[in-house]
Amino acid sequence: MFLLIKKENNFLIFQSFNFYSLTNSTIYLIPNLLGDADIKSSLPDGVVDVVRTLKHFIVEDEKSARKFLKLCGVMPPFEGISFYVLDKHTSSADRSEILKAITGHESGILSEAGCPGIADPGADIIAMAHQRSFTVRPLVGPSSILLALIASGFNGQAFSFHGYLPANAIERIRKIKELEAESAKTGYTQIFIETPFRNDFLFQDILAQCKPLTLFSVACDITLPTEEIVSANIKEWQKRKVPELRGRPTVFSLLVTSGSGY
Amino acid sequence: MFLLIKKENNFLIFQSFNFYSLTNSTIYLIPNLLGDADIKSSLPDGVVDVVRTLKHFIVEDEKSARKFLKLCGVMPPFEGISFYVLDKHTSSADRSEILKAITGHESGILSEAGCPGIADPGADIIAMAHQRSFTVRPLVGPSSILLALIASGFNGQAFSFHGYLPANAIERIRKIKELEAESAKTGYTQIFIETPFRNDFLFQDILAQCKPLTLFSVACDITLPTEEIVSANIKEWQKRKVPELRGRPTVFSLLVTSGSGY
Repeated sequence: MFLLIKKENNFLIFQSFNFYSLTNSTIYLIPNLLGDADIKSSLPDGVVDVVRTLKHFIVEDEKSARKFLKLCGVMPPFEGISFYVLDKHTSSADRSEILKAITGHESGILSEAGCPGIADPGADIIAMAHQRSFTVRPLVGPSSILLALIASGFNGQAFSFHGYLPANAIERIRKIKELEAESAKTGYTQIFIETPFRNDFLFQDILAQCKPLTLFSVACDITLPTEEIVSANIKEWQKRKVPELRGRPTVFSLLVTSGSGY
Repeated sequence: MFLLIKKENNFLIFQSFNFYSLTNSTIYLIPNLLGDADIKSSLPDGVVDVVRTLKHFIVEDEKSARKFLKLCGVMPPFEGISFYVLDKHTSSADRSEILKAITGHESGILSEAGCPGIADPGADIIAMAHQRSFTVRPLVGPSSILLALIASGFNGQAFSFHGYLPANAIERIRKIKELEAESAKTGYTQIFIETPFRNDFLFQDILAQCKPLTLFSVACDITLPTEEIVSANIKEWQKRKVPELRGRPTVFSLLVTSGSGY
């Protein structure tokens, strides 16, 4: 694909520019803060600058999007700014309408916390944007999964993220054992999350079900002043004071290493 | 664990503080820029501020660490700053020496590009720091893997990262087919990388080996002005101009969805 760059001495100068046809549609993927984290430590200034130029935002919840924009210095009444709500209730037809509305514009997609497309309905609309040859620009910001992984000290060359474990106790225990066996077989770090009010159950199940030398990392309140990240094997965890996890956003990781005699 | 916070009216005030015993040792995980990216769009100011306070750095390469510090406003001759080189040649004994040297201090671990602990020897020393009850603090910054994943529009609820695919052509093709089959079975996004000078081979193998409706995302030069991110199915990719990938840092993702008739 070639784009006309300039006309010089009556010659047309073309320049190789992109894989494909250009549209003037760009969608920026805007990471949100993790809870009440400090924006100064969570988002680069250049990202905040991009947010300030945008007039179209695809958001999970309009109220929290307004809160985020205020943190970025975009102030009420948000004149000239359009919000398009995208949540699990948004129909396929509504998604197409949103895409139509932002075509030809620079727009942003904003998650409730962390990166859009990770644990929210954003991925679908990003996929649709690709089909329409939008330019997709991911912006740097906090991802609790990635920060938990690097802070665990576990294998970062090969890992899997599994989202939420099953709520049902029997299925949850089955899944924990499956992940432990998978890590023993492959050496991959196994990362997962839980609804914060059920964190304690998941934690107790892991301590009860996993083998003594399996490594277990608990990363709570990442990027918050109350952040706590601890990695230890199950035997060591069992000797320690049980951490207060209920209601605190937490990322869990398991790793079975060759030294752990699985 | 309780920490004495202050003495007030002759009462000692304690406050619940941490899961475990406190040491005065903290290790910050410092993300580096991806190539010659703009620091303003890659790192939060708060992260740069932390870097400026540190006197101990565990680094993969001292020369590039100095370059990074200069970008953060820490200027030569780097007086009072200690660098400890940690690379694939660092022995286990040397790692223990490094840990000993940084005990009792605030220190930083810095990768060549992106997040420490992901595709570098950092994870081991972070694990050792946990064993010694260091406080481990991951800092926000660019991760090409995570940015590629969110920009792909693929499944962000469940994904696996596999690191580098095999250099041998036959093994590489076997691995590609294995990853495609795995995604068909589980719906997980499969993410992987290649040494930049071999990107073209990997790209061609994927186009030749994967099924027509398998989704394939190519994310090049993330956070750089030349960034290009395209997701399409194999059939669409085959119709398109072959992108110039050789020598450009690229993250590849595959996804087989239920609609792709695998």
